[in-house]
Amino acid sequence: MNKKVIKEIDLSQVKITDEFWSKRQTLITDTVIPYQEAILDDKVEGVEKSHAFANFRIAAGMEDGEFYGMVFQDSDVAKWLEAVAYSLSIKPDAKLEDRADEIIDTIAKAQQADGYLNTYFTIKEPDKRWANLHACHELYCAGHMMEAAVAYYKVTGKEQLLNVMERMSDHIEKYFITDKREGIPGHQEIEIGLMKMYHATGKEKFFNLAKHFIDERGKDPNYFLKEDQNRGWKHDIMDPRNTKYNQSYAPVREQKSAEGHSVRAVYMYTAMADIASVNGDMELYQACEAIWNNIVTKRMYITGGIGSNAEGEAFTIDYDLPNDSIYAETCASVGLIFYAKKMLDIHPSNKYADVMELALYNGVISGMQLDGKRFFYVNPLEVNPDVSGKLFGYKHVLPQRPAWYQCACCPPNVARLLTSLGQYVWSESEDTIYSHLFIGGSSKLELATITLDSRFPWEGDMTYTINPSGTKSEFNFAIRIPSYVKEYKILCNHLEYTGSIDIRDGYCYINRSWEEGDTVQLIFDLPVRRVHTNTLVRSNIGCVALMRGPIVYCFEGIDNGDNIQELHVKRFEKITIGDYDPNLLNGIVPLKMNGIRIYSNEDLYFEGMFSMKEEELRAIPYYAWGNRGLTQMRVWMHEC
Amino acid sequence: MNKKVIKEIDLSQVKITDEFWSKRQTLITDTVIPYQEAILDDKVEGVEKSHAFANFRIAAGMEDGEFYGMVFQDSDVAKWLEAVAYSLSIKPDAKLEDRADEIIDTIAKAQQADGYLNTYFTIKEPDKRWANLHACHELYCAGHMMEAAVAYYKVTGKEQLLNVMERMSDHIEKYFITDKREGIPGHQEIEIGLMKMYHATGKEKFFNLAKHFIDERGKDPNYFLKEDQNRGWKHDIMDPRNTKYNQSYAPVREQKSAEGHSVRAVYMYTAMADIASVNGDMELYQACEAIWNNIVTKRMYITGGIGSNAEGEAFTIDYDLPNDSIYAETCASVGLIFYAKKMLDIHPSNKYADVMELALYNGVISGMQLDGKRFFYVNPLEVNPDVSGKLFGYKHVLPQRPAWYQCACCPPNVARLLTSLGQYVWSESEDTIYSHLFIGGSSKLELATITLDSRFPWEGDMTYTINPSGTKSEFNFAIRIPSYVKEYKILCNHLEYTGSIDIRDGYCYINRSWEEGDTVQLIFDLPVRRVHTNTLVRSNIGCVALMRGPIVYCFEGIDNGDNIQELHVKRFEKITIGDYDPNLLNGIVPLKMNGIRIYSNEDLYFEGMFSMKEEELRAIPYYAWGNRGLTQMRVWMHEC
Repeated sequence: MNKKVIKEIDLSQVKITDEFWSKRQTLITDTVIPYQEAILDDKVEGVEKSHAFANFRIAAGMEDGEFYGMVFQDSDVAKWLEAVAYSLSIKPDAKLEDRADEIIDTIAKAQQADGYLNTYFTIKEPDKRWANLHACHELYCAGHMMEAAVAYYKVTGKEQLLNVMERMSDHIEKYFITDKREGIPGHQEIEIGLMKMYHATGKEKFFNLAKHFIDERGKDPNYFLKEDQNRGWKHDIMDPRNTKYNQSYAPVREQKSAEGHSVRAVYMYTAMADIASVNGDMELYQACEAIWNNIVTKRMYITGGIGSNAEGEAFTIDYDLPNDSIYAETCASVGLIFYAKKMLDIHPSNKYADVMELALYNGVISGMQLDGKRFFYVNPLEVNPDVSGKLFGYKHVLPQRPAWYQCACCPPNVARLLTSLGQYVWSESEDTIYSHLFIGGSSKLELATITLDSRFPWEGDMTYTINPSGTKSEFNFAIRIPSYVKEYKILCNHLEYTGSIDIRDGYCYINRSWEEGDTVQLIFDLPVRRVHTNTLVRSNIGCVALMRGPIVYCFEGIDNGDNIQELHVKRFEKITIGDYDPNLLNGIVPLKMNGIRIYSNEDLYFEGMFSMKEEELRAIPYYAWGNRGLTQMRVWMHEC
Repeated sequence: MNKKVIKEIDLSQVKITDEFWSKRQTLITDTVIPYQEAILDDKVEGVEKSHAFANFRIAAGMEDGEFYGMVFQDSDVAKWLEAVAYSLSIKPDAKLEDRADEIIDTIAKAQQADGYLNTYFTIKEPDKRWANLHACHELYCAGHMMEAAVAYYKVTGKEQLLNVMERMSDHIEKYFITDKREGIPGHQEIEIGLMKMYHATGKEKFFNLAKHFIDERGKDPNYFLKEDQNRGWKHDIMDPRNTKYNQSYAPVREQKSAEGHSVRAVYMYTAMADIASVNGDMELYQACEAIWNNIVTKRMYITGGIGSNAEGEAFTIDYDLPNDSIYAETCASVGLIFYAKKMLDIHPSNKYADVMELALYNGVISGMQLDGKRFFYVNPLEVNPDVSGKLFGYKHVLPQRPAWYQCACCPPNVARLLTSLGQYVWSESEDTIYSHLFIGGSSKLELATITLDSRFPWEGDMTYTINPSGTKSEFNFAIRIPSYVKEYKILCNHLEYTGSIDIRDGYCYINRSWEEGDTVQLIFDLPVRRVHTNTLVRSNIGCVALMRGPIVYCFEGIDNGDNIQELHVKRFEKITIGDYDPNLLNGIVPLKMNGIRIYSNEDLYFEGMFSMKEEELRAIPYYAWGNRGLTQMRVWMHEC
């Protein structure tokens, strides 16, 4: 393996002007972040009470009161602060920054003299710190606050929260390493936070602490059971014997498949890949690669959704991908993007970037209503309003997005991902600029300033303009060619490019001496693709899904009438790609086709055949489903 | 409507010699009843402890100890005793009868001075009698013991248990009617028991008490909530606001669809139909008819399974019939047979008898392993061993029959149904003998002694021999023509019958003057039928099920290789009906056909088509599934 050769992109140097994404970023900066701030401050009526800011004020001694919320309520503040930081890089806002500074002040005051920071234990059970790593999320909350600290420091240059979290890290290091106490996080996340602290500061202690937790995990699969027995009290009903749930069933380097709670899992794999990219740990990298392959070839929905099971929000077994009783948590797809990006940093390949793009354009943004005001936790591929959200086995599958959750992990996770999207678009090594995602905008890199004009995902015509910075004029420009692109054309300065091209792992490397204003154009068709599923997936036999570029399409009852299970997509009939409609679902390209509806008379069971009639079928991008009231929805359509 | 015109058939006058059923009756008499006796007496190692006999001995003051088991544990003894009674009519057994007498003595001793009988409350909470009708099953247990009492009285002529239960009935009547206390059963069943007491003794008080509970039900949908609030304690977590669960959401005469817990429901509908058949209550009958139609046209599996939802073991909504997360409790199919028979008694029609036959040959006997030693509670139409019984949503769907259940309702329910099967085969009115089921044997009726020779369900050739009793020589002989029979031939005394035939509601009425030894032969083909499902049932789109006569077929992995979801039955390919194989699954007729297996390469998602190959497919009767080790199973097969 290569250690990571790719440099961190400074978010402030990336501007996104892409129509598809900039309007979503604006939603986050202008709607989601203020709305979440109001919720965290208990200023929104009629939604689950948060109390997350109040918990910090109480822990800081600034007001009286009781802790309220989940044991990991602090992480909502952290994820919000992280999103605020990214937001400030997109759209400076002095008032918002003042508010963030004020909250960071409060957080600093809530930190205990020994560096400990966690409002639940500080307010409610100060004598029980670190005694229930299994369920109590202290390390998890610390990890998120570290991510916030790094983001805020990088965007604003302000070090207060970074210093707070360094003290917390030092406290953790002393508790677990210096004082030689066994212990691993019940919910992985601090490993990511520590690695970000390491990358931001270069201080090895953060790397070592992250690696410590990764190395310790699964060494003793009975760790949480022992902890439980020693402690003698429980916080909730989590079973410490369920070691797959939190990936402590085996040393991480021996893990070969994605198991257990999907968010815990992908957060851990992200940190594992990051550590391997720093120290070249081959065993760790091989585990990351084996698990990656297991996910994308056996355990991932076509939308980039992962974790098919509501019980434990977990991975189950290979090819178990039910569409209607699905889980596929929004956060898990966000985490899959983190993981993909770390794998991509080690080995630039469309194998990773394609999945990153898939999750981004489908399973992540399906989590957010188009107006940014409501969110899904669970992202089904089939919804039936009389069943979904109502009957046993389907109660978790809501047919419409709720406003806020008691366990509010997903909305801020989407917010922080979309505001930091610039980090996923480009990357750079000593001699190469990489274009991973076709997201229009510009980026000031070391080798060059580069802009991309595109109408992706609706059109397959990308125009890059390259202005070398002068450090060196000859370098590679590597553009990802997605695996769904079968034929493409490259123009340089409007002429067919005839120079050196090297295709490696789905990236097209153009090596030349670049001059100010050089353009590269990548042109490909975006036909509708009919996708089938491995026949080991029981739920999709006889069904087809339609994709165009990275966009998965779905069929809603509102466009196609009731009982869309009766509808069949014809195998050999033309599918019409509609014109981009700016007024439909905030701007989409719909699909239309002649299909067949089969239907029957009133008998429940009958001999003989169905009746059939032709109907025009309409499909919309999956991410936009559920934005027009309660209606049936399917991604996988019967095919005839 | 007609009041019931059909007379009760005295079970002792019916002999079953049919190969298919007599071996199952022998299993019950020789294996199931002794095994259940040993279990009820805690003499079987390695199964759920019952303690049901011991509870009676303790309540009778014959031994010390604590009550153990479900609050309705007494009903296991009742159902066993009922099955013993029927068993004695099949196969006299002095030792078994002595044992039953001994247990009845104990039951009599356990009855309290005021007539009250229930071991749970007598032993454990004597001050809480009748305070939790919602969850505590006193009336339910009484109902089952009444059924046992009537059965034992009819078969043996012994009145001890009948007298015990008359005193219990008088106690109940005084408590609820004389003393004017509100109250309805939390689990309907006593209505059936009381109606049997009424039919056996002719005493109106039993009819009136049964009708009282039916009339009271749903008058105040808040009854159980009020009871809960007045009582101030709970027995379990049942929600008294869930009034659909126990069908108390509306007066029964206003109910038009099958709702809630399926066993409660069909027991109630059975009693409703029975009451209507006695007093000609038109509103009650119309409710029974509406509910019947709702079940069989919208809420019934092709196997006669009902109650698709594990939560509440309940009916859900029209056309919600998932195959793999199904419930379809064995007891519910048993109850559907009770209900069908009562409807048939009012209005002889193959509409009812066909469903009775369907449930009997499929969803009921699938509940019992072929050796009579293990039982299913849940009867799935699709089983996938890595998922079924293991993952969320499927944990209740066991892929193999367990030996005994903590809540052991199903095994004794199958036992009592199969030992009393004679009651379902024939019936008689003033001027007509009815043949409802093609179960070979003889029956001594008032109009004639009639025998049926048949190899049903494997062959469609029935030979009836009629010996008039001499009361009158001219009467109707009415043979059900199942709706799956498209063409048939009737011979009388070996010649094509040319006399008077009247076809009404799927019964062929042959009116003539009968002479000693007259024969009637009914001959029909039993082709394989390809059955499709209404397209409103989402789970069966694109799928076909194979039936032959009443037998539903299924495909098991053990015959068809792994991944049977890949297999397709060809729409236009011949299906071969195998020879009867006495050595396969205790004797079955298998089906064979050329089918198609579709399969794919390793990709999880791919463009382009599947690979295909021809494979020989083999199907076995559904009832025999799961008798050859852990294997995949499907009833609904993809069709191409």
